Parts: sequence; structure tokens; C-alpha cells
Amino acid sequence: MTLRTIGITLGDPGGIGTEITLKALAQLSLLPEVRFVLFGSRRVVEEEQRSLGLTLDIPTCTTIQSIQGPQFSLYEVENPVQTVHRGSPSAINGKASFLFFEEAVKKTREGLIHSLVTAPISKHSWSMAGISYAGHTEYLGQIFPQAIMSFWSAKLKVALFSHHLRLTEAIQKINKNDLFEFFLRLEQSLSGKKLRARRFLVAGLNPHAGEEGLLGTEESEIISPAIVDAQKKGMAIQGPFPPDVVFRQAFGEPETVVIALYHDQGLIPFKLVAFDEGVNVTLGLPFVRTSPDHGTAFDIAGKGEANPRSMIEAIKLTGRLEK
Amino acid sequence: MTLRTIGITLGDPGGIGTEITLKALAQLSLLPEVRFVLFGSRRVVEEEQRSLGLTLDIPTCTTIQSIQGPQFSLYEVENPVQTVHRGSPSAINGKASFLFFEEAVKKTREGLIHSLVTAPISKHSWSMAGISYAGHTEYLGQIFPQAIMSFWSAKLKVALFSHHLRLTEAIQKINKNDLFEFFLRLEQSLSGKKLRARRFLVAGLNPHAGEEGLLGTEESEIISPAIVDAQKKGMAIQGPFPPDVVFRQAFGEPETVVIALYHDQGLIPFKLVAFDEGVNVTLGLPFVRTSPDHGTAFDIAGKGEANPRSMIEAIKLTGRLEK
Repeated sequence: MTLRTIGITLGDPGGIGTEITLKALAQLSLLPEVRFVLFGSRRVVEEEQRSLGLTLDIPTCTTIQSIQGPQFSLYEVENPVQTVHRGSPSAINGKASFLFFEEAVKKTREGLIHSLVTAPISKHSWSMAGISYAGHTEYLGQIFPQAIMSFWSAKLKVALFSHHLRLTEAIQKINKNDLFEFFLRLEQSLSGKKLRARRFLVAGLNPHAGEEGLLGTEESEIISPAIVDAQKKGMAIQGPFPPDVVFRQAFGEPETVVIALYHDQGLIPFKLVAFDEGVNVTLGLPFVRTSPDHGTAFDIAGKGEANPRSMIEAIKLTGRLEK
Repeated sequence: MTLRTIGITLGDPGGIGTEITLKALAQLSLLPEVRFVLFGSRRVVEEEQRSLGLTLDIPTCTTIQSIQGPQFSLYEVENPVQTVHRGSPSAINGKASFLFFEEAVKKTREGLIHSLVTAPISKHSWSMAGISYAGHTEYLGQIFPQAIMSFWSAKLKVALFSHHLRLTEAIQKINKNDLFEFFLRLEQSLSGKKLRARRFLVAGLNPHAGEEGLLGTEESEIISPAIVDAQKKGMAIQGPFPPDVVFRQAFGEPETVVIALYHDQGLIPFKLVAFDEGVNVTLGLPFVRTSPDHGTAFDIAGKGEANPRSMIEAIKLTGRLEK
């Protein structure tokens, strides 16, 4: 059996991405037996090893193909970082984290990497660097329009119909056809995987899911019809449920995924109950992509305080998400 | 010292309101030493006692003034219920639950009742009965425009800037002046109480609180200026914070109240972590009003399965909310 290869992008050099990556690799016994290739900068890795007092052996590889056996490697991506500045967004760090990610996606599309784990980038750094994507998922969504942002933990699983949009735009995007197609795509993206996810519950948009029309009509006019159509296709999907009830229904049910209609509807409950262990998963790609469910944490960058738990879970989940 | 008098309205006769009230009263050792006056119907109470196999002694009182000592009393409110029909909304039950509540508010405003605890009504039953209020809080809000809907538990406390509005309307209601006044009113409503609530965190509206303008401008143009103005008045208020972060910040901090900008933003996290013990509290009234944080639960009405925990917490909280 060929050894699986997991690519890890280091994220924003000003944040905690490199720290949680190195801390995760330092706990190798918790991780799957695979080959790890870091996409990043030697300078950033060395600086972080010094900060953390780690001495992991991470040789530079010039090609992915040349890597032998199960080991860590650093695939150096040409980038503008000369000195590591941590603690706030910057154009240089934005550019660097984008280049790390772009190169890793390229190698993954070439089939050299089986699963991709991405440390946090800063959307603000990307914006300062002139990069217009709101995040990893949006970049992937432009290459793979079928991409779906979802969040996984043992306690709760959530898939987002839309993500990095201002709330008024997110509401405008809700229409029956797109919802219906999203439902089927989500189901399709999870079929045949090792993990279990067999029931889908849809949140309503309005308080009390519209209270039978008293508090909104999107439920009866748009969301219910889309659900009914998906049910006719054989999908195990129900709803719309009152938003303040549906997450409780799904809590502790590992086979259940809640479909949230906008970013915070799904992420408020998810981050509250799965803060340290949550994993961001992009579904609907030809490969597996996971990410820790937190940001760059500029406020604690460089202090050695970052918790690698979510990064470790993100690495572990890649195996369960393969076919 | 005069004995405090707590009024309890029985809520929708088709739901679990009477059941949780009787179950709470049957656990008298958990409750404060006060006088309890039920506002409701003898027929509904007797039917529920039979269902539950309870034999609580609840004599009818003709006037609140005539009640002697610490005991339970039923203040019979004229209402249209002839036979008790449970399990679904109905105009008769809607009318009855409104009359119970209206009478209790009247007696409370007359000073005969010190605190009011309201069992759940059905907004749909109210609508069928031609009652235009979306709920208890909206009725109180019409008499007391300063009324604020909030939710309390040991784990999390949330105050809602708006409540029973469709989401698009709730967003339109967000403006600087109303927000600023809401902040001050909330602080004022909690000053001098026995309970502790000394720090207020405001949630943003958009993902990542607008991500410094990339994902929305309501934060910088409306919410931040309102917070700054409240800070200038000496209020311990901060934000806006990313909505998917702020509830985590407040979790387990008993002195912290999160200010949510719309119904589900506050109630999704609250109901997820405080499901059985949450209390709905209307602040800003000349008296204390609490309510269990759940609905009529028509699906289990009459089955004896309802959990009275939230009702018991609602009764207990009245004491801590008095001056």
C-alpha cells in the first residue's frame, strides 16, 4: 500500500498556524501514519521552532515525488517574507499564506498530495495583499463550484448554505433551486465515505421557522418546497425547524448534519460547543481538505499558548473522510 | 415582613403549562417561601391533576387580598374553555391563555402581585383567537415600551435587541439611536438588583463582525458608534464581537450579558447550552416577570413527560431579580 501524503499549509506567518502545525507534528503518536509535507517558508518554520524550543527534523524537499518513507518535509514556496512579523495582519504575510495555499492546491490537483490540511489565514492580510478571495473555501469554490463549507465535531456537524457574505446578501441568496441543488450536492459529497452522516436537518431562516407564516414566509415558500423535492429524490432530509431548536436536536447525534442557511446560524452553535476540537471541512472536492476551526489568533501569536487540538483533529479527520 | 406573592399564569391549556406549574408546586422545598396565585381555569387545573395523579390543595380565591398565609390559590379567570383539548393550537385555548395573562398583569400593576411567572402560550393559538401580540413580551412591550426580552442561566445570559420579527425586518431595525438607548435601558434595568450582571458584550451582525468592513459595514457605521456612546455614559460595554466568538467569551461568566441583535442570534446558543434550565426574563418593567424558556410542547402535552426544571428556575429567579 502506498503511504498517504498529507499536505499542510502553514497559514498566515503572523498568526498561530506554524505553531499549531509544529505542536501537532510533535505529538506524532496521535496522528495517522502518513507522510506530511508542509507548504511554507523555511524562515518561518525555523523562527517558530526557536520560539517553541522544538527541534523537529523537517528537511526541505525539492519535489514531492522525491520524498521517501514516512517523514516530515518542508516544500519551500517562494514568498516575500524576509523577517517574521507576528501579531497583526500584513500584506506580506497575506501574500505568503496565499502562495503556500495556491501551491499546495496545485500539487494536490496533480495527485501528489492526497489530503490537504490548511492552517488559518487572515482574510484581512489577504485583502491587504490584493487577494480578493474571502478565504480558503472561496478560493476552492472558484476552482470547484461544488465546494461546500462544513464543520465537524463529535458533538455537532453543520453544513453552510452560504458563508462569507454580509447577512443581508446571505438572505437574498436563499432560493428554492439553489437550496435543492445544495441539498443533493451535500448528500452526494458524503456518500461512500468511511464516516457516518445519514440524516440532514434544515434550519429555518426566521424566528420559530416563521411560526406558520406569522413571522416570515421564506420557510413555506422556499425552504419547505426545496426539502420536499430533495425527499422525493430519496434524501433523508427534514425541516425547516426553528433555528433555536434544530441544533439541540442534532447535538450528540454523530450521524446528523444540520444545514444552516447563513454563516453565523451554523457557527454560533458550533463554536460554542466544539471550540477546541472543531474541524472545518470543505466537501464536494475531488480531494479531502480540512482545517482547524479557528482563526489566526493574532493576539496570542508567538507566545507559545496556542492549543493544537483542533489542528490534530483536522489531520485525523482526513483519514475518515477518504473513500 | 409581608409575604411576597408570585402570580403564575397557566399558559395555553392545550400545552404543558399547567403540567409544569403543578409539578413545580409539588416540589415546594425547591421554591421560595412565598404565596402562589395561579391565574387560570379550575377545569384545566382539575383535568391536569387527574392526568398527573396529583392532589395538591389549590383553593379558589375570589380576591387576591383575601389570601391568608403561604399557600397555593387559584384565581379563576373567566374564559371560554369548556372541555380541555390538548395537543394543538386552538382559538379557544388562545383566548383563554390571553385572558389569564391579561388579568394577571392587571393584578400585578395594581400591586397585588409582586412577581409574575408565565407558563408558555402558543403564538399560533393567540393568532387564531384574533390576538395580535406575538407573545407575552410584545404585550408587555405595548404597556411598557421599555420592556427588554432576555434569557438567563448560570452558563449564559443573553438580552435581545429585537425578538419576534422576521429576520429581514430585524436587520432593518438596527440603527444607532435605538441601539444606544437599548444599551442604557438594559443597564438601568439591572442596576440595584440582587443578581450580578456587570459586563455587556455586543454581538456583531455580519460574519466576523464585518471583518473590518470586508463583510459588512453595519458594525463600523452603526454598532460601534452606539457602543462608544454608551461607554461615554460609563457603561461597561464592549464590541461588536464576531457573533460566533462572543457567546463563547461569555460562557460560564455569570456577570456577563451578551447583547444579541436578533432573536436567533441569541437563542440558538442559549437554547443549546441551557435547554432545561433557561429562564426568559422581561427586564425594564416595574415588576419582575419570568417564564420558562420553552414553548407549549404540544407534542407531549397531556402525557406527563414535561420537565418542570425551567419553570422551577423561573420561579426561583424572581427572588434574585427583585431589588
